[in-house]
Amino acid sequence: MNRGLLIVVSAPSGCGKGTLLAEILKDKDYYYSVSATTRSPREGEVDGVNYHFATREEFEDLIKSDGMLEYAQYCGNYYGTPKKEVEKKLSEGKNVILEIEVQGAMQVKEIAPEGVFVFILPPSVSELKKRLLKRGTEEISVIEKRVSEAVGEIKYAEKYDYVIVNDDLSKAVDDFKTVISAEKMRTKNSKEIIDEVLKNA
Amino acid sequence: MNRGLLIVVSAPSGCGKGTLLAEILKDKDYYYSVSATTRSPREGEVDGVNYHFATREEFEDLIKSDGMLEYAQYCGNYYGTPKKEVEKKLSEGKNVILEIEVQGAMQVKEIAPEGVFVFILPPSVSELKKRLLKRGTEEISVIEKRVSEAVGEIKYAEKYDYVIVNDDLSKAVDDFKTVISAEKMRTKNSKEIIDEVLKNA
Repeated sequence: MNRGLLIVVSAPSGCGKGTLLAEILKDKDYYYSVSATTRSPREGEVDGVNYHFATREEFEDLIKSDGMLEYAQYCGNYYGTPKKEVEKKLSEGKNVILEIEVQGAMQVKEIAPEGVFVFILPPSVSELKKRLLKRGTEEISVIEKRVSEAVGEIKYAEKYDYVIVNDDLSKAVDDFKTVISAEKMRTKNSKEIIDEVLKNA
Repeated sequence: MNRGLLIVVSAPSGCGKGTLLAEILKDKDYYYSVSATTRSPREGEVDGVNYHFATREEFEDLIKSDGMLEYAQYCGNYYGTPKKEVEKKLSEGKNVILEIEVQGAMQVKEIAPEGVFVFILPPSVSELKKRLLKRGTEEISVIEKRVSEAVGEIKYAEKYDYVIVNDDLSKAVDDFKTVISAEKMRTKNSKEIIDEVLKNA
């Protein structure tokens, strides 16, 4: 059984990351890592599906025992990625997708530089603004704040291994799968193939 | 105009590298770098097609003026890759393929680590031997020497970025193109895309 790849995906809001990941996750070779959080479940949220809900004490125990791949606090709550589940799925041969923001991604890069770091870009910042306006769910001032946050995040794109522009959804899905197929052919992920070829030589 | 990629391809003899490259070179985005040599043209060989034929003095002048990407001597003749042509084609946006052996590839890696280094593997060493036998053009002792050379070369595969197994030709062609498509999405090759996205932000 070949080990799966650890894939870290970041994107500013409005990049269509959710739709893109939903498409990719139809393929059973991929597994979406569920984050842990100390915030309370919202109505309809299911433990182990939306989040692994944990107490503050449980979360801090995991941090102390080096059990988190990355974590951060927002509005007084912890959010993070428990190592254990990720490791289990990788060893089962699944490509594990971590959907995390830039700071978390940089933490993962420190611990797991062998991961594949993918940044999803909007076709342009003006298109991003248009998409956020189209949703019609937010005030213009909120949208402007989001756009300026997005610009700040995109500046981190160069710290990732790959950038994929999500203009056309099916092309972006193909691009993502192309990147993963190529990564599987990287020498560091193909040691078993080389050994196999040399067998009985 | 985006710059092309420098692609270094190595493979032991009998890996079907020639057929594979012929398929890839049907795509006009790719350019096959013609080596220079000081050996005399054989019957039917055309200057600039099979090789750039050069005098010893011309070749040594190129070495002295840092004009060779890599070179070596075999049986008293020089063989090498002139930088100038490679640079010209890369700047025209072509993906330039250097088909060179392991030692030359390692020289290129020193000078141009940004290159994409691809090693073509046979499905197995016993299959390789079978293919060489099938050609029926060589003595068994020569074939055994080639196989043992191949094993020695395959041990260098891990110094390359990617390994592609040439079992089924059309799959190997697809794999090669997948690798190059993914490399185009690498952040280091996508700086212009990031700049474009951020334009007017």
